[in-house]
Amino acid sequence: MSALFASIDLGGTNIHAAVATAAGEIIADLKEPTHSHEGPEGVIARMKQLLVKLGATTNRRPQGMGVGAPGLVDFASGTTRFFPNFPTQWRDVPLGARLAEFIGAPVWVLNDARTAALGELVYGHGKAAKTFLFYTLGTGVGGAVVIEGRIRLGEFSAAGEIGHVTIDPHGLPCGCGSRGCLETLASGPAITGEAVRLVLAGNAPMLRELSGGDLNLVSPQLVAEAVQRGEAASTTLLGRVGEALGIGAASLVSALHPPLVVLAGGIAQLGDAIIEPMRRSMVARVGMFPADAVRIVRSELGDRAGLMGGIALAVRGGNPEKNLSL
Amino acid sequence: MSALFASIDLGGTNIHAAVATAAGEIIADLKEPTHSHEGPEGVIARMKQLLVKLGATTNRRPQGMGVGAPGLVDFASGTTRFFPNFPTQWRDVPLGARLAEFIGAPVWVLNDARTAALGELVYGHGKAAKTFLFYTLGTGVGGAVVIEGRIRLGEFSAAGEIGHVTIDPHGLPCGCGSRGCLETLASGPAITGEAVRLVLAGNAPMLRELSGGDLNLVSPQLVAEAVQRGEAASTTLLGRVGEALGIGAASLVSALHPPLVVLAGGIAQLGDAIIEPMRRSMVARVGMFPADAVRIVRSELGDRAGLMGGIALAVRGGNPEKNLSL
Repeated sequence: MSALFASIDLGGTNIHAAVATAAGEIIADLKEPTHSHEGPEGVIARMKQLLVKLGATTNRRPQGMGVGAPGLVDFASGTTRFFPNFPTQWRDVPLGARLAEFIGAPVWVLNDARTAALGELVYGHGKAAKTFLFYTLGTGVGGAVVIEGRIRLGEFSAAGEIGHVTIDPHGLPCGCGSRGCLETLASGPAITGEAVRLVLAGNAPMLRELSGGDLNLVSPQLVAEAVQRGEAASTTLLGRVGEALGIGAASLVSALHPPLVVLAGGIAQLGDAIIEPMRRSMVARVGMFPADAVRIVRSELGDRAGLMGGIALAVRGGNPEKNLSL
Repeated sequence: MSALFASIDLGGTNIHAAVATAAGEIIADLKEPTHSHEGPEGVIARMKQLLVKLGATTNRRPQGMGVGAPGLVDFASGTTRFFPNFPTQWRDVPLGARLAEFIGAPVWVLNDARTAALGELVYGHGKAAKTFLFYTLGTGVGGAVVIEGRIRLGEFSAAGEIGHVTIDPHGLPCGCGSRGCLETLASGPAITGEAVRLVLAGNAPMLRELSGGDLNLVSPQLVAEAVQRGEAASTTLLGRVGEALGIGAASLVSALHPPLVVLAGGIAQLGDAIIEPMRRSMVARVGMFPADAVRIVRSELGDRAGLMGGIALAVRGGNPEKNLSL
């Protein structure tokens, strides 16, 4: 029997846990609501319950576990620093140590976007390209910078915040405290907010029809549907999102010249409606060398990237050298 | 006797050549005007003359040579691609091979900003910090990204163009073909151009007095002198240059979280008049984690960084593994 490894993708909505082999074959996985309002104790109790259920299924102890956490985490200690989208404090929670004690095996905790990038590196597009930018496009815009097979972490594992590259220095205030960050233009809330404006202003009749006039139903996916039905305003909206993504990517491509840019998260599923304008904008903005060959693709692992990254963390965790260099 | 290594820093104005030990002790150096209008043949002939003169001084053959070149160079082959500020074509000139044949030792050719960053890495601030952003602030804004002791090169050694990070997507057209790049706001010509506007508009009387009313004498250094004499408009000008630098650095710090940013080139010599506003802007714009600890310093090697980088290239050149990873 091959060794098993565990993984938890801790999100604001769901906790997704899995047990898999080192090759990335998932043996069992389970998902439950996070109930983040219950705070660290409640959420950790739920994580433990999921692990107990998975253990009952696989009937074997994992060799180690990787956890993708929605915020700043000190990778070396597994201690949480700050979860921006959770309603309760997660300051200095020894999450790694608590879970390691519970499962009786080592646990590594890393920011969720960096964890997903590791999944992509080990089990996805990284099999072909070892240097890439990795964007997670969702409620926020997170990411990672992967250079020659290593995820750039930096002090307290905070590097990779490529959703906070400045796109417009005079732009909207960002939740991070800066302004005009990519996140203010290309996150789910940014797209939905602009879509609502278009509906209310009477400029997006198709979008209005698709939503049945209920603003609660307006979403990036609905905008994409309006684009497919040929609505000009919705097409322009996603074109501008793609343009912002292209400006941000161009700045990082000028600096790092990766051969690949990977898009993950719900917004990445909008596909060519954002990827094509992103590509045009990126190529036009990289002036110092030809960037036509830089590919922009959707994550090969999709919404499993985070979970697979946790497995990769656990598999590599046993080797401190590999672990630190990821 | 310890082995000697040669270096050439090829600039638009001067060719600076040196012979040094592996420890970086310069044994002899010479500088002559480039006369770039004479084209590759004339310039290569001058480089050879300088090497002959240096050889007569040291009376020993160098073990290898590194050349910093003002543009795009294919590092693997030593062939030039494009020198943006030279009046004649330098497309596909086998500069490395030509010089290697002449000196009878291997020659490595790298973009001048990346070469200077290597000098800084091996002989300057890099002795303390192995990860840093390196800006060369002069007629253009070039640079390099150094991560864990490796200079990021990428395909055809073009990575590191951090002067072409977008600061303002609606900004001025840049020579590279994009718009609103850092270079349009923080290069020598950008500063002088804005200073001339202030003089002509009557908003910078001190600057006007210092220049004796001759616009040919307006320069970034003169602006810095006006700042020291307390002129508000000149202070605002350099403050905005620093702010632009801070926005660009913040985007890259969010992505890579280096502990250090190094400024080289003539504009870096303006010192705190740009470094202080740069620091404030950078810290304010990195919202996802505290960036107060990221230091911004002037190059330890100053205008010798390029020359020392050439020596470092030559010293490391003998080891292909080290050479490729720089």
